[in-house]
Amino acid sequence: MNVLYIGVCKKNLELYYPSYIRGRFLDSPFTDDQLVATVKQHRINVLMVDVFHSSFNKCLLNRLKDHVRLINFSYQSIESLIDMQEAKRLGILVKKLPDDLYCNEVAEFAITQLLCACKGSFRFDRDIRNGEWNQAAHTNFSMNGKTLGIVGYGNIGKRIASLCKPWGMKILVTKKSRHMGPQPAGITIVDFPTLISQSDFIILAVPIKKDTYQMVDRVHIQKLKKNTIIVNISRGNIVDEKAIAEGLEKGNLYQYCTDVFSQEPIDKNHELVKSNKTILSPHIAWATDSSLKKTYDIWFGQTTI
Amino acid sequence: MNVLYIGVCKKNLELYYPSYIRGRFLDSPFTDDQLVATVKQHRINVLMVDVFHSSFNKCLLNRLKDHVRLINFSYQSIESLIDMQEAKRLGILVKKLPDDLYCNEVAEFAITQLLCACKGSFRFDRDIRNGEWNQAAHTNFSMNGKTLGIVGYGNIGKRIASLCKPWGMKILVTKKSRHMGPQPAGITIVDFPTLISQSDFIILAVPIKKDTYQMVDRVHIQKLKKNTIIVNISRGNIVDEKAIAEGLEKGNLYQYCTDVFSQEPIDKNHELVKSNKTILSPHIAWATDSSLKKTYDIWFGQTTI
Repeated sequence: MNVLYIGVCKKNLELYYPSYIRGRFLDSPFTDDQLVATVKQHRINVLMVDVFHSSFNKCLLNRLKDHVRLINFSYQSIESLIDMQEAKRLGILVKKLPDDLYCNEVAEFAITQLLCACKGSFRFDRDIRNGEWNQAAHTNFSMNGKTLGIVGYGNIGKRIASLCKPWGMKILVTKKSRHMGPQPAGITIVDFPTLISQSDFIILAVPIKKDTYQMVDRVHIQKLKKNTIIVNISRGNIVDEKAIAEGLEKGNLYQYCTDVFSQEPIDKNHELVKSNKTILSPHIAWATDSSLKKTYDIWFGQTTI
Repeated sequence: MNVLYIGVCKKNLELYYPSYIRGRFLDSPFTDDQLVATVKQHRINVLMVDVFHSSFNKCLLNRLKDHVRLINFSYQSIESLIDMQEAKRLGILVKKLPDDLYCNEVAEFAITQLLCACKGSFRFDRDIRNGEWNQAAHTNFSMNGKTLGIVGYGNIGKRIASLCKPWGMKILVTKKSRHMGPQPAGITIVDFPTLISQSDFIILAVPIKKDTYQMVDRVHIQKLKKNTIIVNISRGNIVDEKAIAEGLEKGNLYQYCTDVFSQEPIDKNHELVKSNKTILSPHIAWATDSSLKKTYDIWFGQTTI
């Protein structure tokens, strides 16, 4: 088995699975020609694909078909990364990570960022370091008695709801009508406009699709309750970032916590970075000590040809 | 009814109960003589006491006895603030706030600060604002599967355990033996040294007493697991702050989150403030939007003579 790692962080591999550093590494950026040449030169038959900005389309797959037997993605959604039909036709095995792998980690992270904003943790800490003992900051809100709106009731949304169950919040969720089963205990299914106008806290946990692209826009932001906090652990383009920044500036939105951006890495001069009403992280919610280990366990575990 | 407010934040009162700004205000610092003079001059018969650095001892009570009918504390523990026997003997009514008033707020806050430390929220945010997109920071830990040790299983400790129930942690608690009932479901009662050496996260939620003074000391800090986080929402002197600072410096302790300090307000040159392994707040865990309202409801509700 001759392995080529594509876009794989060597540092993480060294930390978690030093024994697996036994293939070659191809770092981004690279061209299709460079990929094909590397595969041919080193008789690569297994591709381990992590960060990948290209696509295994019909043409590229046909150039690889005489060598590659397995393409093993460290991704959960691979629709846009490979032509599955063509891979199947050519007898190239394709593997990916299970869909629910990170739902607990992402749910934990979303609630952390929400709590941080809700309690004013950043401001209190900063004030003390500046020599201010500010007990009348009024940035500390109770969770108990508030309304939490979860947009998207998939694996992540469900886990968020279950982690928040004892916290004494009213929980609203939106859910695709075609999946509408009986209403889960302690949870109220509502439409998106109702969720927007009734929630104190909103967590965005939908996949990015045509109908979810910028689903939180200028109009919605004007309909929010006072002191609403929005947490985005979905994708940057689920919201209109310009409208979010404007809402923060005008006071229609209290805080925006996001792990994701329309452009990643985000530029440090972006208005969301300049705002003191945002809590930011680098698309990292999924990557904890235990999920990284689990990812490598699964990813390497299915590397057999 | 002639009311004198002692050490009361006028700003909070204006925000939450403007209709109650109908008495006189006595701001700290003041002498006993000034207090007695104000009471006599304005025929005060009700004292509403918030921040109070003195004590209603036998002498002071006897100087007030011909005027004051009610001393109403915005405190939960008043043992050190008034000679209860003497007040009773003189027929002065004494009221205070209920013991469990803030347990949910403090529990929510403790978990927030723990999560903040556990996920590395501060660091991620700071990095992005500095133009770093650092996905390999390895500061993001999973809660699930970890061991949470709660020192003190009173109202606050119980609320913490109940909020954390669905998070998939092993929960250890210490509990006074004389209150030792049947072991609560999902919780393991252990002694303090066991809790110290087995917990990934430790929350201190005991009252300050002779036997809890600096109960976390240099010896305990050496016995902690790797990457342990300690959260203090009790009192500053529950820990030996010097030993904590030393533990952070040497790497025996991963993070220290505290709402309380041995000296409040804490000096901005204190080593805990200088450390980048602390998360700090100004004794504010209890004071949320809803608890402030509730406090005033109760405090003013019992102002009848």
